[in-house]
Amino acid sequence: MPGPIQSLARAAAILRLLAGGERRLGLSDVASSLGLAKGTAHGILRTLQQEGFVEQDPVSGRYQLGAELLRLGNSYLDVHELRARALVWTDDLARSSGEAVYLGVLHQQGVLIVHHVFRPDDSRQVLEVGAMHPLHSSALGKVLSAYDPVAHSEAAEIKREPLTARTVTDDAAFEGVLDLTRARGWSADLEETWDGVASIAAPIHDRHRMTVGAVAVTGAVERVCADGEIRPQLVAAVRDCARAVSRDLGAGRF
Amino acid sequence: MPGPIQSLARAAAILRLLAGGERRLGLSDVASSLGLAKGTAHGILRTLQQEGFVEQDPVSGRYQLGAELLRLGNSYLDVHELRARALVWTDDLARSSGEAVYLGVLHQQGVLIVHHVFRPDDSRQVLEVGAMHPLHSSALGKVLSAYDPVAHSEAAEIKREPLTARTVTDDAAFEGVLDLTRARGWSADLEETWDGVASIAAPIHDRHRMTVGAVAVTGAVERVCADGEIRPQLVAAVRDCARAVSRDLGAGRF
Repeated sequence: MPGPIQSLARAAAILRLLAGGERRLGLSDVASSLGLAKGTAHGILRTLQQEGFVEQDPVSGRYQLGAELLRLGNSYLDVHELRARALVWTDDLARSSGEAVYLGVLHQQGVLIVHHVFRPDDSRQVLEVGAMHPLHSSALGKVLSAYDPVAHSEAAEIKREPLTARTVTDDAAFEGVLDLTRARGWSADLEETWDGVASIAAPIHDRHRMTVGAVAVTGAVERVCADGEIRPQLVAAVRDCARAVSRDLGAGRF
Repeated sequence: MPGPIQSLARAAAILRLLAGGERRLGLSDVASSLGLAKGTAHGILRTLQQEGFVEQDPVSGRYQLGAELLRLGNSYLDVHELRARALVWTDDLARSSGEAVYLGVLHQQGVLIVHHVFRPDDSRQVLEVGAMHPLHSSALGKVLSAYDPVAHSEAAEIKREPLTARTVTDDAAFEGVLDLTRARGWSADLEETWDGVASIAAPIHDRHRMTVGAVAVTGAVERVCADGEIRPQLVAAVRDCARAVSRDLGAGRF
C-alpha cells in the first residue's frame, strides 16, 4: 500500500501551523518551521491560497487561515449525527440546569467541542464550537478517557499539564479518577481546568455500545456545588440527557 | 511560475464534494464525480483521513468530512480581525433591535456568515456561522455587491436564481438596486431570499476604505417593516453598528 501523499501531508502541516501560535506567518517562517525549502513551501501556500484555505495579507505578505475552512467546518457539523441528535436534548438540559452545556468528541489528544448551548441568562458568552478542551482535566475529557479505549491511550500518553492547583497529573491518581468515573457513570471537574469553574459530564453511546461523545454542564463552582458537594440534581440531569441522546442514536436502554 | 499542485487541488475538490449534496460518499462515487481513477482517489482520501480532514464510516465504508476541519475553521474565526472587532457592537445591535444580527464577508460567489448573534428572546435558533447566504438577494450580499468591486463582478457572473416571487433576477433591475444601495448607504431584502423574512445591511470599511464585510439585522417582515415601510430606527441602528466597527478597524470618520 502506498504511503501518504507528501504534498498533501505538508499542506496539512502548514494549516496546523497557521492554526496555532502566531497565526500570521511569512513564507520564511513557514518554511523554516517545517524544514521545507522556500520554493516548496511557496508552491503549497499558493495552491492553498487558490483553494481558499489560506489568505495572504496584501500589505505584510503574511499568510493566515482562509474562509473556506470555516465553510467546510460548518458542513462537518451539518453531517455530524451525534450533534443533530443532541440539539434538542442539550437545549433542554441548559434550560433545566440554568448552566452552559457542551457536547464533545475525542479529536487527536483532546476534546473537540461540537455543540455549545449558552447559559440561559443575558450574560455575554463566547461560542466555543471548534475549540479543544483538555483530555486529562475537563469532565468531558475524563469521561471519554474512562469509556473510550482510544481516548484512554491518548490520555495515558500526553503530558498532563497542571492547569490549576487542583489538576490531577500523577499517573496512578489519574487512573483512580477514571476508575471512579466508570463506577459512578459520570465524571466531575472541580476547578481542575479553570479556577472557579466546575463541570459534570456523562458518556453518550451508540447502537454498538461504543462511546461516541460526552455531554457536560459547566458553571461557576458555587452554583454547581452546594455545601461542598456536587448537586445531585445536576448529575441526574446530565445523565438523563446523555441517556436520551444515546437512545436516539440507537443504544439499548441501560 | 509553476502551476497549482495537482494532488492538493484534487484534495480540495474532494473536500468540497463531501461538503455539498450527499455528504457521505463511497470511493466509487468520489472517483467518478471528479473523473479520477479509483486508485488516485483512494490515495488522496487515505491521506486526508490520516490528517483528520476526512472520516470513514467503519460499517458502510463511506467517507465524510472530518473533525480537523471544524478545529481549523474555529482557528480561522479566532484570527479574523473583523469578527473580533465586531463582537461587542453586534451584541449591542441585537439587544437594541431585538432581532438577529449577522456579520458576513464575501467568499467565492456568496456571503460567508462569520458571526451570528441570536435574536434576544427564548426562541430556538440555529447558529449559522459558516453558512453561505446568496449574493444577489440577501441584504448582506447586495451591500457587498454595491461596495466591493470583486463582489460586484461575482454577482454579475452568477445565475441569479429566483428564491421567492420577489427576488430580483433581471440584470438591469439588479444594477438599479445596487445604485440605490450606494445612494442610500444601505441595502434591504424584503422577502427576496426567504418568504416572510426581511433584512437591512450596511457596509463595513477598513483603514484603506476597502469594504471588508457587512452587518445585517434580520427578522420577520412584520417586525422589520411598519405600515409597509422599513422602520427607519432599524436602518439607523444597523448603520451605527457598521460605522462603529469600521472605526474600530481604523476607517476614518464619514
